Amino acid sequence: MSNSAVVEEVRVKEGEEEEEEEKRKRRKNEEDWQQEVRSEHTPGKILTTLDRTTTKPGDQAFQLAAAYVSDAQYARNIPFQTGENAIWCYHFYTKWVTKFPMYLFLILDLALALVESPAIPGLEWPFWASMLVELLCLVAFTGRLVHLGMFTERRVFWRDGKNICVVVAVIVTAIDMVVYLVLTVEGHWDIRWSRVLRPIFAINFSESRQLRRAFCNIRRTLLGILSVFILFLFSIATFSLLALKLFGNQHLTTHQGSPYFDNYLNALFDLYVLVTTANSPDIMMPAYNKNRWYSLFFIVYIVVNTYLFMSIFLAVVYNGYRKHLKNEVRTSVFNKRRSMACAFQVLCEPVDEDMVMSQSTWLKLVRVVAPTTSESHRMLLWQVSDEEHQGYIGKRVFTRLADLLNIEVVEQWRRPHPLENCAPRVYNSWLSCLVRHAVHHRFFRYFFDVVIFVNAIFIATDDTVLAIQKAEWVFLALYLVEILLKLYTYEPRAFFSLSNFWNWFDTLIVLIALIYTMVVHSSSHTTEILDFLFILRVLRLLRIVDTFHRLRVVMQTLINIGPTMVTFAALIMVFYYSFAILGMELFHGKVQFFPTPSTPEQQMCGNPLLVGSEFVQRQYCKNNFNDIVSASVLLVQLTVVNQWHVLASGFVITTDIAARLYFIVFHMIVVILIINIFIAFVLEAFILEYTLDKGKMESAIERKIQELGLGITTQELENKQEMLIENMEHSGNELGKSESDQSAGKCIMFKISEKRYRTVNALLQRMFEQDLADEPEDQVDAVPCRFTLDGVL
Amino acid sequence: MSNSAVVEEVRVKEGEEEEEEEKRKRRKNEEDWQQEVRSEHTPGKILTTLDRTTTKPGDQAFQLAAAYVSDAQYARNIPFQTGENAIWCYHFYTKWVTKFPMYLFLILDLALALVESPAIPGLEWPFWASMLVELLCLVAFTGRLVHLGMFTERRVFWRDGKNICVVVAVIVTAIDMVVYLVLTVEGHWDIRWSRVLRPIFAINFSESRQLRRAFCNIRRTLLGILSVFILFLFSIATFSLLALKLFGNQHLTTHQGSPYFDNYLNALFDLYVLVTTANSPDIMMPAYNKNRWYSLFFIVYIVVNTYLFMSIFLAVVYNGYRKHLKNEVRTSVFNKRRSMACAFQVLCEPVDEDMVMSQSTWLKLVRVVAPTTSESHRMLLWQVSDEEHQGYIGKRVFTRLADLLNIEVVEQWRRPHPLENCAPRVYNSWLSCLVRHAVHHRFFRYFFDVVIFVNAIFIATDDTVLAIQKAEWVFLALYLVEILLKLYTYEPRAFFSLSNFWNWFDTLIVLIALIYTMVVHSSSHTTEILDFLFILRVLRLLRIVDTFHRLRVVMQTLINIGPTMVTFAALIMVFYYSFAILGMELFHGKVQFFPTPSTPEQQMCGNPLLVGSEFVQRQYCKNNFNDIVSASVLLVQLTVVNQWHVLASGFVITTDIAARLYFIVFHMIVVILIINIFIAFVLEAFILEYTLDKGKMESAIERKIQELGLGITTQELENKQEMLIENMEHSGNELGKSESDQSAGKCIMFKISEKRYRTVNALLQRMFEQDLADEPEDQVDAVPCRFTLDGVL
Repeated sequence: MSNSAVVEEVRVKEGEEEEEEEKRKRRKNEEDWQQEVRSEHTPGKILTTLDRTTTKPGDQAFQLAAAYVSDAQYARNIPFQTGENAIWCYHFYTKWVTKFPMYLFLILDLALALVESPAIPGLEWPFWASMLVELLCLVAFTGRLVHLGMFTERRVFWRDGKNICVVVAVIVTAIDMVVYLVLTVEGHWDIRWSRVLRPIFAINFSESRQLRRAFCNIRRTLLGILSVFILFLFSIATFSLLALKLFGNQHLTTHQGSPYFDNYLNALFDLYVLVTTANSPDIMMPAYNKNRWYSLFFIVYIVVNTYLFMSIFLAVVYNGYRKHLKNEVRTSVFNKRRSMACAFQVLCEPVDEDMVMSQSTWLKLVRVVAPTTSESHRMLLWQVSDEEHQGYIGKRVFTRLADLLNIEVVEQWRRPHPLENCAPRVYNSWLSCLVRHAVHHRFFRYFFDVVIFVNAIFIATDDTVLAIQKAEWVFLALYLVEILLKLYTYEPRAFFSLSNFWNWFDTLIVLIALIYTMVVHSSSHTTEILDFLFILRVLRLLRIVDTFHRLRVVMQTLINIGPTMVTFAALIMVFYYSFAILGMELFHGKVQFFPTPSTPEQQMCGNPLLVGSEFVQRQYCKNNFNDIVSASVLLVQLTVVNQWHVLASGFVITTDIAARLYFIVFHMIVVILIINIFIAFVLEAFILEYTLDKGKMESAIERKIQELGLGITTQELENKQEMLIENMEHSGNELGKSESDQSAGKCIMFKISEKRYRTVNALLQRMFEQDLADEPEDQVDAVPCRFTLDGVL
Repeated sequence: MSNSAVVEEVRVKEGEEEEEEEKRKRRKNEEDWQQEVRSEHTPGKILTTLDRTTTKPGDQAFQLAAAYVSDAQYARNIPFQTGENAIWCYHFYTKWVTKFPMYLFLILDLALALVESPAIPGLEWPFWASMLVELLCLVAFTGRLVHLGMFTERRVFWRDGKNICVVVAVIVTAIDMVVYLVLTVEGHWDIRWSRVLRPIFAINFSESRQLRRAFCNIRRTLLGILSVFILFLFSIATFSLLALKLFGNQHLTTHQGSPYFDNYLNALFDLYVLVTTANSPDIMMPAYNKNRWYSLFFIVYIVVNTYLFMSIFLAVVYNGYRKHLKNEVRTSVFNKRRSMACAFQVLCEPVDEDMVMSQSTWLKLVRVVAPTTSESHRMLLWQVSDEEHQGYIGKRVFTRLADLLNIEVVEQWRRPHPLENCAPRVYNSWLSCLVRHAVHHRFFRYFFDVVIFVNAIFIATDDTVLAIQKAEWVFLALYLVEILLKLYTYEPRAFFSLSNFWNWFDTLIVLIALIYTMVVHSSSHTTEILDFLFILRVLRLLRIVDTFHRLRVVMQTLINIGPTMVTFAALIMVFYYSFAILGMELFHGKVQFFPTPSTPEQQMCGNPLLVGSEFVQRQYCKNNFNDIVSASVLLVQLTVVNQWHVLASGFVITTDIAARLYFIVFHMIVVILIINIFIAFVLEAFILEYTLDKGKMESAIERKIQELGLGITTQELENKQEMLIENMEHSGNELGKSESDQSAGKCIMFKISEKRYRTVNALLQRMFEQDLADEPEDQVDAVPCRFTLDGVL
């Protein structure tokens, strides 16, 4: 068989596997629902939409539909039962009041590592106290699970992997606790090994959907990366053999006097470290100093393993990650559409042989789903949905509701400046107008950018000089004038609206600087906190970025993809936590830090084995596994990669050569896998943000906002003069301008929030929107939507 | 204006700019051609196709058409004149006989750095000798340019940037040489600064099209990256200010006792180095040892600058590179199609109101274009083109010829085994058949994979033990038996065909090992070269990869994208050359290497300023700029990044703090830009190779090969029994199997070569095939194709 044919076949196979899996998943989903319905023993009737064409939907129907819609909105996929109690239970389950304590207990459980032995110095609790808290957490987790079980069908509940995971983790932890208690009371030594499992709780509760998805994705990417990884290891193994033969018998030594490629395992480790570039060029120098042609070996090695293989890892991870992400998003969109279809079935009415939803039903439903939205916001959404003003909408349009609700629309009440109300004559006098005009002018902004820049230069120079200390007063005064002038010109509530980050930032920094300067001059002694806050005024420099158009675009893109990175932060935390706990169990106390070492042993990190090692020379004693914070900082350093072999050497010397495994596995998992996935995500998100158009939904709602203009005001909300402005800028200056262009008076303005992607899901969906658009929506209808309302209708 | 609108606008602008540029380019191309035609003063007539519908094309017409087709085939875009002499000149220009000396002179010119002062020790020439050679090179370059000028119109010639570049470089080099000569003869000191410009010759000759394209691409990507880069520098500057304020007044010292964040420029440099991770975690330790919360500053810094900004650099480079590449490929495809259209116009005949090309004309043309192809190969291509057996083809189909010629089709003459000819009875006896069957069996391969693996383990263990030395004989004997058995089973010429890399490799390695072992045992002393070759037998391990299906796929992908990376190698060489020459001028002799240092000064790399520095401690003395080879190795180490600040420190200490600029600029250009472009290319190429289908052209020709089967044999080439087999495998084993399945006898077999993408261009075109397919071909017709044949027809 030709190679190209081989490649082809694998592709086909991979494609098939994937499709198979997807199909299996959907089938499973479908079965879940059918089983749920079949095994529903409570008195009630199975409804199809045809059964209740004549009845008006009751309150419970609204509750059920609202549950479906909010499932779709937040991309939940919990198969709840549709009985009255179950829906109520489910509503309660998704409420903040039950979710918040859950998060609290999760954090508490993870935070126990701070106070358990080995604890942060001074924070150690007796073991019974921390175990009591852990028990509390376990009870809470069990309670949450029981709550979940109350509204899901038993068989569905037990077929869900994440529930089983949690149950197993709870049981295992409980057993470990009992064993530990018994052994400790009897005076035997034991380790709390189940602590490594704690992140399982964080991953497997329904609340951490994004995290679980990321994990699932990593698991699958891992399979794809495996063949490349084997080839990579094989390449290192072969090169090590070559190196051993080339350099092993030449009796060379490194610059620290240790033998050079003396045995195979050391050669393997050294060359693995070279892949990470951490010991380049030191590993090459002895051979290079002997003969310059030996450098070719290392250059070839680096090109093949560091550049080619690492790029290919990135390529495979990027490719696989994107593929799996797409599948997951597709499943998620499918679930969303089915939920919306179910909600539609619950509430629809027949009109001209079509099933539709009337405006009143729709508005009532939205009120139930999103009680915090205002009447005008709801009307705006209706206008976007019912484009042809028919008074009702079909199923397809209704499906969009979940996306519409996810778009953050900010309402702003347009008010005149308070001073204009108090003293209109003065405020509108020519002098006042001149001032306001000056503040609006772009040179006003330029001037203060220059001031900030000059201030930064002053900060950079030595601040013990008296003249520079004096200058600080001038700058402070200038900043104060700037803020007061702006407050004079712009309406204060608009100026300090939540989305105007820069105004808040400016004012805060200036106020802190003012307080600091006054405190310093009155009491002539400062605290460290205040010092630090004063230093933060340097950050005002960032405002200059806002002046340059292209920089602002990049900055905005950065800010837009920022929130979605929280998932990655959580992901890496999970790995850090497990590795930190493991490291603490393995290397606790091997290396110690003494702030002012007095004895020779203390200078050697409290361990005589480390004498003369690079670990001690570089003063790495504080990089140890003696508490969770130190361990985390050490893991960050290992993630950055540089000098990781030196850090590892400290623990290899004090324990055993097998300790290298811990560090190599950490590098493989966190650096090669997770960091590559992070880069893949940034790549995808940044390219998308930077080049593509806006999402369909948003541009539709924006178009509507512009199209309607004052339309809603006169027709729908006659008592309010309403304005719909899209172009409200986060920058205070431009905001002011657009305001001054508008007619004065109290009015509402809508704008789409800058932080557009509130959920990672929304961003992901947008990533693959193009492909998903082609997805036939009929598939959704193929899965029947069945629900019971126990005799209320 | 809202931010989203800002983003949009920039996008639109960028898009517009791009399209504008592209249009401008095409317009320019068009104008070039028109001008060329207008200013054609030689007697002749401007032909349109209608002018010569009745005449048969003559030899000169074939020459002209062949020039067009070969332009299209090799993606050349040289606007040659169409007079008889000019075409002859152009043919001569593109011939190997004129191109080869050109490459030779280019290499010679660049290689002068080896013998010019500072030269490789022992290789230094007197300055007049190297300058004489350089003069020779300059004459050759000028000659090549004059040759080019002989067949291009003068105005077109002088409007071409690359010609002007070469002319300027020649003149500047000549001036520099004269100035240097005069000053040296008069005893003044001078530097040959024009040597930095030498890569200009390598880039700007028409032969290095790919390299020039890569350069052009970098120039454009640079513009896109600029805003991110400014933001990145701004971020570092701000963080440096913060660091200075936070740590500057605490009187901390690094582990080497130097002051910690004592002034702004040092802080800036240290934090720039931290972005490259080269001084992590050392730079953080003093502050971390003081207070553990200070680590937060460094963690935030690394997350923002190292992870976020570096990923965004990659994203922007990836995005920009792909975009520009696409445009270039689009232009290239456009040029190709126009060339083919011109060739068609020269040779087409009218049939039923359509202009077509007859089979005989087509075959004659292909014979002129590709004289080395066999008759049967040409027939195969015709069969692929003329799918409906009409005897003629249209313009659209004719255009594909350029791509068809680029597909490497290997012909193999199927022959019976020589032993079968000599002694058919013995060769076909049951014992012989059994042996051959055994060799074909997959367990034969598995067995020798195991043998190689066991051998590798023996190699890895200590080879001074006698038993292991004895074992080497056993392994050698086994390998010899393997090769002999294979030669017995497979036809030798098929076994050693050029595309069977593994067979060549195996045989060579085994022969070398055999010779080595015999030499060692007979004379009991070895040379280093033989030693090294013997070590290479470890590489037989690579053959194991071939056994595993998935690994082979990855390996094949690697091999496929391999050749296209030559462009990147050349690109990086160009940068290395300029930086190396510059570095040699700046830092020559500052650091010296003494293999066996005797005096204390020699131990300090011959420079007392370096006493106690890390540069000396780590024995980096050989990393210097004293000759071009050392400088190149040093630049490779700087590219790998690790310890680059230590390497830089050696030259900063011995010269001036401004020397840091050299190293920072090198890092910015080579690591941030070039390496990211390399990664972007690997990403794109690997993902494509790994996931997409074959190119249209190739699958068409493969389908045809299969479809025709023995078709050609009976119909077209009756005297030869021809077989068309697609599935000939590079692996000897499978090759054998498919052969044994076929009927015996002498016959031709076609297969598409494994190294499918002979030119980078072909790969690039395939990358964007999907998008280019949508491109309307009519645009090509919009550009008129005019040519003159001076009165020959």
